Amino acid sequence: MTSPRIVGVGMTDFGVHERPLVELFADAAFAAFDDAGVEGGEIDAFYLGNAMGGQTERDTHLAPTLASHVGLAGIPCQRYEDACATSSNAFKHAVRAVESGRHDVVLVGGVERCTPATGLGTPEMTAVFASAAHRQYEQPTGLSFPGVFGLLTTRHMHEHGTTEEDLAAVAVKNHRHGTLNSRAQFGKETTVEEVLDSPLVASPFHLMDCCPFSDGAAAAIVASEEAAASLSGDPVGVAGVGHATDVVPLADKADLTATRSAREAAAQAYEEADIAPDHVDVAEVHDCFTGAEVLAIEALGFVEDGAGGPAAAAGTTALGGEIPVNPSGGLKAKGHPIGATGVAQLVELTEQLRGEAGDRQVADAEYALAHNLGGDAATTVVSVLEVVA
Amino acid sequence: MTSPRIVGVGMTDFGVHERPLVELFADAAFAAFDDAGVEGGEIDAFYLGNAMGGQTERDTHLAPTLASHVGLAGIPCQRYEDACATSSNAFKHAVRAVESGRHDVVLVGGVERCTPATGLGTPEMTAVFASAAHRQYEQPTGLSFPGVFGLLTTRHMHEHGTTEEDLAAVAVKNHRHGTLNSRAQFGKETTVEEVLDSPLVASPFHLMDCCPFSDGAAAAIVASEEAAASLSGDPVGVAGVGHATDVVPLADKADLTATRSAREAAAQAYEEADIAPDHVDVAEVHDCFTGAEVLAIEALGFVEDGAGGPAAAAGTTALGGEIPVNPSGGLKAKGHPIGATGVAQLVELTEQLRGEAGDRQVADAEYALAHNLGGDAATTVVSVLEVVA
Repeated sequence: MTSPRIVGVGMTDFGVHERPLVELFADAAFAAFDDAGVEGGEIDAFYLGNAMGGQTERDTHLAPTLASHVGLAGIPCQRYEDACATSSNAFKHAVRAVESGRHDVVLVGGVERCTPATGLGTPEMTAVFASAAHRQYEQPTGLSFPGVFGLLTTRHMHEHGTTEEDLAAVAVKNHRHGTLNSRAQFGKETTVEEVLDSPLVASPFHLMDCCPFSDGAAAAIVASEEAAASLSGDPVGVAGVGHATDVVPLADKADLTATRSAREAAAQAYEEADIAPDHVDVAEVHDCFTGAEVLAIEALGFVEDGAGGPAAAAGTTALGGEIPVNPSGGLKAKGHPIGATGVAQLVELTEQLRGEAGDRQVADAEYALAHNLGGDAATTVVSVLEVVA
Repeated sequence: MTSPRIVGVGMTDFGVHERPLVELFADAAFAAFDDAGVEGGEIDAFYLGNAMGGQTERDTHLAPTLASHVGLAGIPCQRYEDACATSSNAFKHAVRAVESGRHDVVLVGGVERCTPATGLGTPEMTAVFASAAHRQYEQPTGLSFPGVFGLLTTRHMHEHGTTEEDLAAVAVKNHRHGTLNSRAQFGKETTVEEVLDSPLVASPFHLMDCCPFSDGAAAAIVASEEAAASLSGDPVGVAGVGHATDVVPLADKADLTATRSAREAAAQAYEEADIAPDHVDVAEVHDCFTGAEVLAIEALGFVEDGAGGPAAAAGTTALGGEIPVNPSGGLKAKGHPIGATGVAQLVELTEQLRGEAGDRQVADAEYALAHNLGGDAATTVVSVLEVVA
């Protein structure tokens, strides 16, 4: 098996985009082509993440449509939908295809629009997102995702004494990081007071505990070690990818705060990369809500179980801290265009490992980890990237 | 690389099902488990095809949800959407994962509901289907899929003299085959006159040239040669899988009647299987409209280009003919629950190669081919199955 590389990355700013998905995606894809130094004719296959285009803008069969738009018609194209873990699952398949020798150079990317640019307001978009909750057991109760993560986080507060101030500190940290990222949707800092004073969405989350609705696209070129050597793009290595699921619905989970799919996916990724959690120098984790970051850093083994709450306030997970988490600003401040998020995490980490992250650079990072979660914490993909010679 | 096998298959009747997707899929999956002689704990991964669950019944992130329902929570699960080629693309990935040694035994399946059981009538469902046409260039014109295939077929009539009677003969043949299949949605014969007298939907297609809206599910267990040897299911071999795309929208295609993605996918599958078209003993092709079968049998090399029109009337593609096409009744008579169709074709062909197809058995079939097409004839997956010792 060949060792896959990420040889090029590109993404749009995250925010509000009044442009069709095809154009939005093309911006990210062409940036990735340029960064990798590849021409369209060198791309063997395309792995697309798009979670909701049918529901939000009546646009499906998007993989060949986007491929056509960027000059790749003909190659095998496939669209993935795994809720918020959509494009990291596409990435997994891109990596496996290269690893097995089936393809040499492939495009992976994600695109989504979730803002009123689609014509849908907050209530309608919340209902679209809620389609990823269990159709028979959860949707009829009115449960939507602030509620799903609110329940998980409330249980963590009950078990471990995590406070609303602990949660707010995650938002404060990620907003601070976001001010260092020109592509982030929110370029402004916030405070614990501002978070706690913002309207309650679903207990314990205030509005400022929640990531925004976002439009955006992200893309990466994955190549075999041999193909990468012939391209001009500065490669980073894909050391390991793990992917696991947990039971849907929430009520059937054996342990609400463990996010078991994340633990299993992390264990697989660490084993494949042959590293331990303390080898990770920088991570992008799925902070759709502040509480989700607390659960994630425990599941990934960055802190002890139950110790995740105070980590942001203590600076452990801040830039300059022991394990910088979400230097990009995370979903919370960078934004969360659902199907683009997984690949956008990899864009940030590729730049970190190359030393191209500017004001938010983590010094001498050798291993970087992405944690992308979908639905009722039911899908998690964990990817470990590494510096290669 | 290991040579993958299909070791078990299962499907529901196609028709109208007033039951949730989870239950419908479970019927197919458990039948496939039983047929293969596997227990849930032996399944390493799950590849799901579902094209439109978000739009039709607000049900997404279905891969882990269905996995949970059939006792497989934990394993990596992924959902594919590639319009009508959805579950054959899932099958391709299942095959590649086994072939590369990543997994030993996997579940692939598809499920969809397209009838008024979803609460949506014909106009609404037609609009959902049309989301797979080009969002900017085609949907605003009112083009939906009878129109897409009507345009392709009209061009074939212009170039080759294909007649409405030729097209009607495809419906007559596939309805006759469907009477031999207890799982088919339509168990009754039709006549050329009945087809031509039925209401015009989109020229040249009358209502009886069109496949129905259907609900249903299909599943298969794919295993490595080694794993298959330890299971009780009667295996068939996966000799080759091809997958290619063509440009979207229609107006950009270099040749309207060639269905180039089908030609390229077929060439790949024939090469991988090391066979020529005349080695194929039985085929299931994507006859969403009668004209689509005419284009398919030319693209697959079963007849000369331009000679597809008279093939059904001449008996060439009938049971007992030179190359029996759609012995199951095809999409036309068996039904077309979008995301289930690709795997359902493989269920039929597995039974044909095992000699279990009853009254519609093709004698001594050694090679069987499935052709599954999506969107503006823009995605095609072609799979070749073979008898193994």
